Amino acid sequence: MTASPDLKQTMDDLGRRARAAAALLATTAGADKDRALIAAADELVRAEEEIVAANALDMAAGEEKGLSKALLDRLLLTPERIAAMAKGLREIAALPDPVGRELARWQRPNGLDIARIAVPLGVIGVIYESRPNVTADAGGLCLKSGNAVILRGGSESFHSARAILAALTRGLEAAGLPADAIQMVPTTDRAAVGHLITMEAFVDVIVPRGGKSLIARLSAESRIPMFKHLEGICHTYVHAAADPAKARDIVLNAKMRRTGICGATETLLIDRAVAASLLPLLAADLARAGCALRGDAEARELAGETPMAAAEEIDWDTEYLDAILSVRVVDGIDQAIEHIRAHSSSHTESIVTEDAPTAERFLNEVDSAIVMLNASTQFADGGEFGMGAEIGIATGKLHARGPVGVEQLTTYKYQVRGSGQTRP
Amino acid sequence: MTASPDLKQTMDDLGRRARAAAALLATTAGADKDRALIAAADELVRAEEEIVAANALDMAAGEEKGLSKALLDRLLLTPERIAAMAKGLREIAALPDPVGRELARWQRPNGLDIARIAVPLGVIGVIYESRPNVTADAGGLCLKSGNAVILRGGSESFHSARAILAALTRGLEAAGLPADAIQMVPTTDRAAVGHLITMEAFVDVIVPRGGKSLIARLSAESRIPMFKHLEGICHTYVHAAADPAKARDIVLNAKMRRTGICGATETLLIDRAVAASLLPLLAADLARAGCALRGDAEARELAGETPMAAAEEIDWDTEYLDAILSVRVVDGIDQAIEHIRAHSSSHTESIVTEDAPTAERFLNEVDSAIVMLNASTQFADGGEFGMGAEIGIATGKLHARGPVGVEQLTTYKYQVRGSGQTRP
Repeated sequence: MTASPDLKQTMDDLGRRARAAAALLATTAGADKDRALIAAADELVRAEEEIVAANALDMAAGEEKGLSKALLDRLLLTPERIAAMAKGLREIAALPDPVGRELARWQRPNGLDIARIAVPLGVIGVIYESRPNVTADAGGLCLKSGNAVILRGGSESFHSARAILAALTRGLEAAGLPADAIQMVPTTDRAAVGHLITMEAFVDVIVPRGGKSLIARLSAESRIPMFKHLEGICHTYVHAAADPAKARDIVLNAKMRRTGICGATETLLIDRAVAASLLPLLAADLARAGCALRGDAEARELAGETPMAAAEEIDWDTEYLDAILSVRVVDGIDQAIEHIRAHSSSHTESIVTEDAPTAERFLNEVDSAIVMLNASTQFADGGEFGMGAEIGIATGKLHARGPVGVEQLTTYKYQVRGSGQTRP
Repeated sequence: MTASPDLKQTMDDLGRRARAAAALLATTAGADKDRALIAAADELVRAEEEIVAANALDMAAGEEKGLSKALLDRLLLTPERIAAMAKGLREIAALPDPVGRELARWQRPNGLDIARIAVPLGVIGVIYESRPNVTADAGGLCLKSGNAVILRGGSESFHSARAILAALTRGLEAAGLPADAIQMVPTTDRAAVGHLITMEAFVDVIVPRGGKSLIARLSAESRIPMFKHLEGICHTYVHAAADPAKARDIVLNAKMRRTGICGATETLLIDRAVAASLLPLLAADLARAGCALRGDAEARELAGETPMAAAEEIDWDTEYLDAILSVRVVDGIDQAIEHIRAHSSSHTESIVTEDAPTAERFLNEVDSAIVMLNASTQFADGGEFGMGAEIGIATGKLHARGPVGVEQLTTYKYQVRGSGQTRP
């Protein structure tokens, strides 16, 4: 869809205001940003009633539209969820300032002093679906990292997001920061998204948060770089030298702790050498937890009493986001790595083994954003990594890979200090 | 132009072979890559006659086509220039291995050990114009950083580049590395470029080396991220507290040392407070060196005896790449920064001042890839920065900013080592 002249002007105005705010934010002291984050948290709590009322409008419209129970649950804001958003902002405030870090510094023989300094990216566009809490999370992370942000939430959560934004804005103003630091596209017109992802003059990075179809569509049309992952087809590989107890714990957790997150394991690879002894136990654990299994011929043969459906080719390339696991027996690490190269979405893969050289080979040769040894793939998360909150996980290779936290929302510039040097 | 089915297959084959080579290179020991670089340097010197002969074909065709003298000079390969290419490869071999660096490492309370490790980007496409030496430089930098490269030189230098590539290939093979690590598009068909910049499955980054029109065209069509700069509209700002002698040295060097490089200053900003005393000296220095001047009304009035043409609006946005300088009188650092924000291409800007707080303001508030104090903008170069050779300068904000050396040709992944951890 093409933007109408009016919409184009609205969007360009947002962009221009974001650029102006970004120029101010780039040199705003960390303490001032933190004050604004804490003020915004206070305002969120204070605005609880107003936010719940706005959310009720969205919920009613959602019910009328026949949104699924799962979607309605994502949409719902309760006092507890509002408190959680406020807590999130306070946690972001407590992180170290990612801006101004000296990433490297050295002197040249001619006396030039060269420093690589972290600076904000500029303006970030965040496009999300129904979860209204992204408004506060993304707004907070962008502010902390000195970036202006233009938010575009789903039309279902429009009123909720607007009420949250109003509270954030009051927080910004209370701390003397420009309200334009966090803006929201003021219309649910879908053409606005098309404009947002092509207004390169005003937006430096797009962060899409949502399902695969949204992200695929945005990727095809965006002229602006994105921090994104299309999907998380994560693998857990149980090697011949795996500790059986660890393998059972890890596989069950990697698949079943939460099946709907991108770090959930979708495919289990298991070495032939241990499949006969270990696969029946793994299969039984998973089945007991409610997981359906789809295996290759050998896996089905070795799964013991647990029923296992026949996996089809497409299963190896499927992100179920559900209580389903595909299972393949492999004849060793080479075949495991080869399978992962062919089918992984480059998000997160884990090996379970007690053999150190095999572990190092896996960690070095598998080229995904996150590679793990003896740990559940569900740890693929900025919070679990100790990076504080994350705005998403990136599986692209450029700039940010893996969890995208406040550090990854910065870039750098070189400051060169001389005393009159000219180049020979 | 769309690629014919045959061309598409040729390009996809190149891509597939590059991917396979990249997988090997990613875990190739630094010493092996260095041996290949040194062997390639030896082979270049050994192939001097063959390369000069191939170059003679290109030179003859270029003369027939009526290429300009400047272009023919860029195209020419002499034994000295071949030796320089070989020397460049040896210097790249001497750099530290950028792959496998531990960029960060920390432990989590649950015992997980998280390491951020530098890994190659994968496959890099380098598109360049007439300089055949880029074949060796780009090939060497990509190899050192563990990346496979697909080179696409200008049609004018096709035979020269092919002869250089043949020598590089012999070096790779002598060191037991895959010849596919450095490949060249085997046709001068321009549609090949269109295919190269859209084959996202096989190429991770495009590095365009060439004039503004080439880069603008590639930017509009590429589906693959680029490390690029469109142009270098660099500014030198002479502040009221400038040391006059430094200002004279720096301005003259920043403009006139070499006028055709992207780090050459194109606009001089000078504070009103010192313009009357200093501008006549600067203008005379520049005119004596053969530089034409274009100034705003005030600059023309204060330039003294040196003639200065009237600058038009377009001058502030022009990369002359020639012995021409635009000159504007400003009323202080605010106006200087404002001018730079409006007109800079975000490449390199320098302030000349002895006032430390003003210097820090400039270094912090000007958001260009490189900001300098009391130094010539012509230092904007990976070699001058001590990073070894560079594949180019990037003015984008993502991933690599400023000189793109071997470190910037890597990305990272996370290696997470556990002992059976599951996520609560």
